[in-house]
Amino acid sequence: MQVGILTIGNELISGRTQDTNTSHIARELNIQGWQVPILMSVDDDEAAIKTALDHILAQTDAVIVTGGLGPTTDDKTTEAIARAYGLKLYRDETILSKIKAIFDRYGLYWAPSNSKQADFPEGAEPIANPVGTAWGFSLNVKGKLIAVLPGVPAEMKRMLSQGALPTLRRTFPEAAQAVASRTIKLSGISEAEVDQRLADADLEGQGVSVGFYPHFPELRLVLTVRKPTEEEARSLLKIAEAQVVERLERHIFAYDLETLEGTVAALLSERKLTLSVAESCTGGLITDRLTDISGSSIFLERGAVTYSNLAKTELLGVPEETLRVHGAVSEPTARLMAEGVRKLGHTDLGLSTTGIAGPTGGSREKPVGTVYIALADGRETVCRKYLFRWERRRVKVATSQAALTLLKRYLISIPGQT
Amino acid sequence: MQVGILTIGNELISGRTQDTNTSHIARELNIQGWQVPILMSVDDDEAAIKTALDHILAQTDAVIVTGGLGPTTDDKTTEAIARAYGLKLYRDETILSKIKAIFDRYGLYWAPSNSKQADFPEGAEPIANPVGTAWGFSLNVKGKLIAVLPGVPAEMKRMLSQGALPTLRRTFPEAAQAVASRTIKLSGISEAEVDQRLADADLEGQGVSVGFYPHFPELRLVLTVRKPTEEEARSLLKIAEAQVVERLERHIFAYDLETLEGTVAALLSERKLTLSVAESCTGGLITDRLTDISGSSIFLERGAVTYSNLAKTELLGVPEETLRVHGAVSEPTARLMAEGVRKLGHTDLGLSTTGIAGPTGGSREKPVGTVYIALADGRETVCRKYLFRWERRRVKVATSQAALTLLKRYLISIPGQT
Repeated sequence: MQVGILTIGNELISGRTQDTNTSHIARELNIQGWQVPILMSVDDDEAAIKTALDHILAQTDAVIVTGGLGPTTDDKTTEAIARAYGLKLYRDETILSKIKAIFDRYGLYWAPSNSKQADFPEGAEPIANPVGTAWGFSLNVKGKLIAVLPGVPAEMKRMLSQGALPTLRRTFPEAAQAVASRTIKLSGISEAEVDQRLADADLEGQGVSVGFYPHFPELRLVLTVRKPTEEEARSLLKIAEAQVVERLERHIFAYDLETLEGTVAALLSERKLTLSVAESCTGGLITDRLTDISGSSIFLERGAVTYSNLAKTELLGVPEETLRVHGAVSEPTARLMAEGVRKLGHTDLGLSTTGIAGPTGGSREKPVGTVYIALADGRETVCRKYLFRWERRRVKVATSQAALTLLKRYLISIPGQT
Repeated sequence: MQVGILTIGNELISGRTQDTNTSHIARELNIQGWQVPILMSVDDDEAAIKTALDHILAQTDAVIVTGGLGPTTDDKTTEAIARAYGLKLYRDETILSKIKAIFDRYGLYWAPSNSKQADFPEGAEPIANPVGTAWGFSLNVKGKLIAVLPGVPAEMKRMLSQGALPTLRRTFPEAAQAVASRTIKLSGISEAEVDQRLADADLEGQGVSVGFYPHFPELRLVLTVRKPTEEEARSLLKIAEAQVVERLERHIFAYDLETLEGTVAALLSERKLTLSVAESCTGGLITDRLTDISGSSIFLERGAVTYSNLAKTELLGVPEETLRVHGAVSEPTARLMAEGVRKLGHTDLGLSTTGIAGPTGGSREKPVGTVYIALADGRETVCRKYLFRWERRRVKVATSQAALTLLKRYLISIPGQT
């Protein structure tokens, strides 16, 4: 089944307000297994509303409309819909008295214009508003369903799940499907490369829809499956996920709502390992990300943002000679920073970053984007060199991602302590 | 002039991604003085894209399209538009080699499918992408303009202001009024309070449109003036800005593209002062923000993320007794942290934060959101207590904002050195 969404309001087309209703409704409709071919927003204007409804219903079985149900003159949705389909308005006295009761209870001033919130097009089925005075309604027009809800997100959300969705399922019983979906988060690989590596699996051919969502520095891959039953949907999704993991495992760092910092935090806690971080080019971004995780104080002992050479020498014990001979951005410096911060913090692990974030400071042998990341565990120290493109902020973000990924791979490679 | 917006992508109609491009573009178009009668989103589907374009262009003079310009098979925008208007695709070899050069320079994997990012419909004028490989284009069709941009917000925003808007102004000169606009960035004040303090100035009455855009932790106030000539627009804007500054000066921290960290960095450099930062609850966020500014190494000596009590004692010299008696989250600890990090870094200034970011760790006398921020300059140490509501990340962000604001006010209060 196809369902469109129409949001109405001047605050939307002016860009004054970020429309969050549309994505919420679209998500809820997709979960039902219904297709959402079109989303539209227009002004509180009768002609615009009619044109929009005609265009959407020409492509869909139903439309969910939000906004323009208030008591003021610029709220025209109900009249516009009635006129668009040549229907008279009727006033529901029971609902009117319920709305009046709310005004009395809270001692609100009753403006005559409030009465129009109890007006509905002939044949409409009112949808109760459990949290406000703007009732919605559903209306059958030539075999298509129009469900109208207020624009206030808190009211819309409850009336969608309690009123509009049940009405849609009742009106189109044959169209209720089960949906299963999985988000796979990747980094260190391009969209094109993922696309190519998955080509032979032909997931679409198996009835699995695959979406790519770049979310710098991540790439999110979303697998969605629709089947008549939960079981069928879940089992096909499982098979598809296994095929993706088989081809991209090394680049996967989290699933669904998990984050890279969350995964690293969980691994550190689980393995009872403590960490200190020495950051030069990332300037504190790595510890900032790790401390976004509640409970990070269990494993994060301290961080040192050693932006100056003096700080690298004094705090981390990097010899002046190393800095002079190899430079602050070099493998020897990165290694000594990781080992130095590990000692400084008396921790199991030491992680370090040093690089040229740009836009200045680059040279022919060390261009902007040159980064060294090192990890020391007391037995050995690994160091990796990276060359990132992009501007300063993105170099910092990509470096923090690479550092946390290096740490995560290390943590997975060692046996958990018990 | 009427301009529509069409955003394309499965992630939008599925509700998996919150579309922020539409509201940004709508805002920018309104600033130009143009009407935006319709906003639409459809799937990456040729037929859907054609139907949407026809519907929008029937009501508008131009349309801005975003999304579907990637290298993967689910990116169909360019082909769809070419076919919709019966145009062949041509490959721009110059652009192709520029895209290839980026891949070579950074040793990225080149998939053959990447070539299609250099394909454009006959007659299209490419729009350069300064930050990515997805070029956009503008196309004249029967006197209407179609401007196509990538869906990645950072890329779309730059290409809108540098490519699409100038093209629209060139194509429809009669609709191009002189527009002057100023963004005033505030913090530590509510939208309602700003509204109230500006009421007596009656800016709208003077022909100045005022937009409020909450951008946690900032509140952005955008003043826009439209006049026949640049001069008229600029002079009216100047008068309006002066009225705002007069009423809100204390809360203004930056204008237009300036940031709080940028303002602080400029003041520190100008006054030739050096800084060290000791962060507990902000976990490195303050130094992360300061190091986003190129040249921050001039004033930022080092940062210490002293997450553990041991780190506060060892690195900053906070006596164990202070931590035991007053606690890690207390005014005495904050003061000693600021003084300690100042000594540690041999700098003019020492800034510190300590607080309870939550969701755990709160108590009756020190609830979640309790934060102390201190600033030491060797002569005196100031300390402020804050109580923030909101969840963990927002407490961290609000704390970094308050700390940088405290630092900025200090820097403004002292005379610049010469």
